[in-house]
Amino acid sequence: MRFSDFGAIFGGPTGIMDLMDDMGKALAGGVPMLMLGGGNPAHISPVNDLWRRQLTEILAEEGKMERMLANYDTPQGQPSFIRALTELLNREFGWSLGPENVAITNGSQTAFYLLFNMLTGAYGRSDDSRPGRILFPLMPEYIGYADQTMSPDNFIACRPLIERLGDHLHKYHVDFTALEERLAASASGGERICAICVSRPTNPSGNVLTDQEMTTLDELARRYQVPLIVDNAYGIPFPHIIFDDVIDGSAQPLWNENIVLGMSLSKIGLPGTRTGIMVARPEIVSALSRANAVLSLANTTVGQYLVEPLLRDGSLLEVARKTIMPFYRERAEHAHRVFAQVFPDNLPWSVHRTEGSLFVWLWMEGLPISSRELYERLKKRGVLVVPGEYFFFGDPDLAEWPHSRECLRINYGQDPAVVEEGLKIIADEVLRAYG
Amino acid sequence: MRFSDFGAIFGGPTGIMDLMDDMGKALAGGVPMLMLGGGNPAHISPVNDLWRRQLTEILAEEGKMERMLANYDTPQGQPSFIRALTELLNREFGWSLGPENVAITNGSQTAFYLLFNMLTGAYGRSDDSRPGRILFPLMPEYIGYADQTMSPDNFIACRPLIERLGDHLHKYHVDFTALEERLAASASGGERICAICVSRPTNPSGNVLTDQEMTTLDELARRYQVPLIVDNAYGIPFPHIIFDDVIDGSAQPLWNENIVLGMSLSKIGLPGTRTGIMVARPEIVSALSRANAVLSLANTTVGQYLVEPLLRDGSLLEVARKTIMPFYRERAEHAHRVFAQVFPDNLPWSVHRTEGSLFVWLWMEGLPISSRELYERLKKRGVLVVPGEYFFFGDPDLAEWPHSRECLRINYGQDPAVVEEGLKIIADEVLRAYG
Repeated sequence: MRFSDFGAIFGGPTGIMDLMDDMGKALAGGVPMLMLGGGNPAHISPVNDLWRRQLTEILAEEGKMERMLANYDTPQGQPSFIRALTELLNREFGWSLGPENVAITNGSQTAFYLLFNMLTGAYGRSDDSRPGRILFPLMPEYIGYADQTMSPDNFIACRPLIERLGDHLHKYHVDFTALEERLAASASGGERICAICVSRPTNPSGNVLTDQEMTTLDELARRYQVPLIVDNAYGIPFPHIIFDDVIDGSAQPLWNENIVLGMSLSKIGLPGTRTGIMVARPEIVSALSRANAVLSLANTTVGQYLVEPLLRDGSLLEVARKTIMPFYRERAEHAHRVFAQVFPDNLPWSVHRTEGSLFVWLWMEGLPISSRELYERLKKRGVLVVPGEYFFFGDPDLAEWPHSRECLRINYGQDPAVVEEGLKIIADEVLRAYG
Repeated sequence: MRFSDFGAIFGGPTGIMDLMDDMGKALAGGVPMLMLGGGNPAHISPVNDLWRRQLTEILAEEGKMERMLANYDTPQGQPSFIRALTELLNREFGWSLGPENVAITNGSQTAFYLLFNMLTGAYGRSDDSRPGRILFPLMPEYIGYADQTMSPDNFIACRPLIERLGDHLHKYHVDFTALEERLAASASGGERICAICVSRPTNPSGNVLTDQEMTTLDELARRYQVPLIVDNAYGIPFPHIIFDDVIDGSAQPLWNENIVLGMSLSKIGLPGTRTGIMVARPEIVSALSRANAVLSLANTTVGQYLVEPLLRDGSLLEVARKTIMPFYRERAEHAHRVFAQVFPDNLPWSVHRTEGSLFVWLWMEGLPISSRELYERLKKRGVLVVPGEYFFFGDPDLAEWPHSRECLRINYGQDPAVVEEGLKIIADEVLRAYG
């Protein structure tokens, strides 16, 4: 049987699938593995207790379980869930969202697939036939975007500026000069940029763009008449995995008609329900809902049913701020302490300041082997991480940049003993690699 | 903002979305509506009781709810669910499926989107550059396929032969002569057919292809070296909405390495969980899983958790045969009785024999208005149905066939009083249309 071009692109080898295969096989191999690779959120007991309470209440209320499981949702999502969400966001941030501003999808990965492809690629019906490309201002970026567009050429990406915050601590910044050059080139007939996209906090680096940086991105996007797509899966107001005391200044969510704000129920602890949320202007919400009907028919209902009451009374925000955020904050601090203990001071290792997300991002300057090779060696010793290579995509320039092969993404949200044991082995293997 | 070609195709107006919009607005309009339009399964009390028991058991088992909600599923699906399913199918039908033969997706609509696009369209990397097209042997077919491919030209469809079973009863048959002509034309350099696809039972007509017809389709598919895709969402062994005493002969599921068998948990009463199942050769399962990782990252877990124990002990099959099937059988009989009572005997109306599915398919020969117009008139009188036009796609020839504008799809699974009231209004409006 032969696959079409679509089959070759989406059904073929991809970074994320290779890695997941690899992890699956490693797990099946019988060797106990320290799983610091994937993006699974931690199991936080008080949060799981909350889902248990919600499910119990759903079972207790006449007919509610039946409506949750036995009815097709609409392609836009539950009207009552959308109303509860918009009312909460309006109350909290002074926005004026209506139901026409929210589309639910089966996970935010699906929403990004739809959105990226609705914007990029060929514009056969337009007077400007240059293919559209998404511009990522701050590499490294989320691995899951890398293979989502119909053509691998549909991305443009900028290297970050690297600020040294100490011997073993650094932070990425957007190179706004380079960014604006790219946008100007697009405006004057070069490769056409059709949107700017950032994750905030950033998976993988844990960087949190400041309000100031977001405002600048927003202004640039509007000046160059492209939407600004913001992936807020780890952000505010939920799951609120932004460490307010660590970042420079505040990090409030920003929204206006030119911004598409992606949110998710995964990192509040409901990845199994696959619930993505896109907040955008009505034109985009309508297009996403239509595409969702064709691709998915309807949305999953369980996440919406579990969370709606907590949006209505606002208690989800309290859970996020008072339980989820402090939990990760403590785990992140612990991971940073372990790094300092187990990594030799005289090696040129550095971690990105963990301002949010579930990950510590390790950079080993001048690492004599690629991070992919380091990943393989670690796997043999029972530690699973994700090599940094996969998070630098969208520009051939990035592959030539040594930095892109000197990093690892490490999920710090697991059991502290597992993180500690894993980091010891990573330190030992890194030491060997430097020789 | 401008949408790309992808945006124009998938984010633009489609039959299914227009209709759902329409229904949503009709509902919001405050007029009480008799909802005979959508595909929602009936709420069957003993089946809902079963989900209630399963959920309660999940809550009672230490850590199980946490695994269900708080863990990412793999892009292929839960290994233990897949094992339970393959063991059941092997035991029941003597197949020899392994875990490599099953891919789970977020609903079977998503699976069909992936599969159709992995097969159709451009084959840039192939020596045969003719775009691939899916061949539907028996129109009318499921409305949800119509807009799923990257190009609207990606389908080829055959008119059915119509057998008269009585004054007001008919049945469609595959025109095997026309079908084979199409396949032969493809083999000799005409439009390239890359797969054959049928639903069984057929949504919308309620037709059930016989084992003999399936065997012939299977032989043709293998002779012309294309896969046979079978949508078994209403079929055997679950939900078993096939009325064994109505069809001509038996209807056992058929599977071999050349068949892709689509199944679903929706029609056993779990549409809100979005769980699709594809049974296929490992090459296709692997490609579907990879594409699923890129588009959806992971699968929903709730449906798999609820159903796995019932696959393991086989009780799902008993529920399907002894509860779900008789429930629909009785409702279908009731609907047919009502038709005979409320439709004037001297009008040229005819219903397709309801051999399975949730729908009665009404054909009004020589109807002076289009079924779309009839749909509009019915909506004004508080009855929602789906006009037949939408189920004839994939061939310009079909749009010219008057039959394609003379039919309605009616969901008979609702409350019998609602069905009765709705059918009375339909009969009255049809009578007026004939004048």
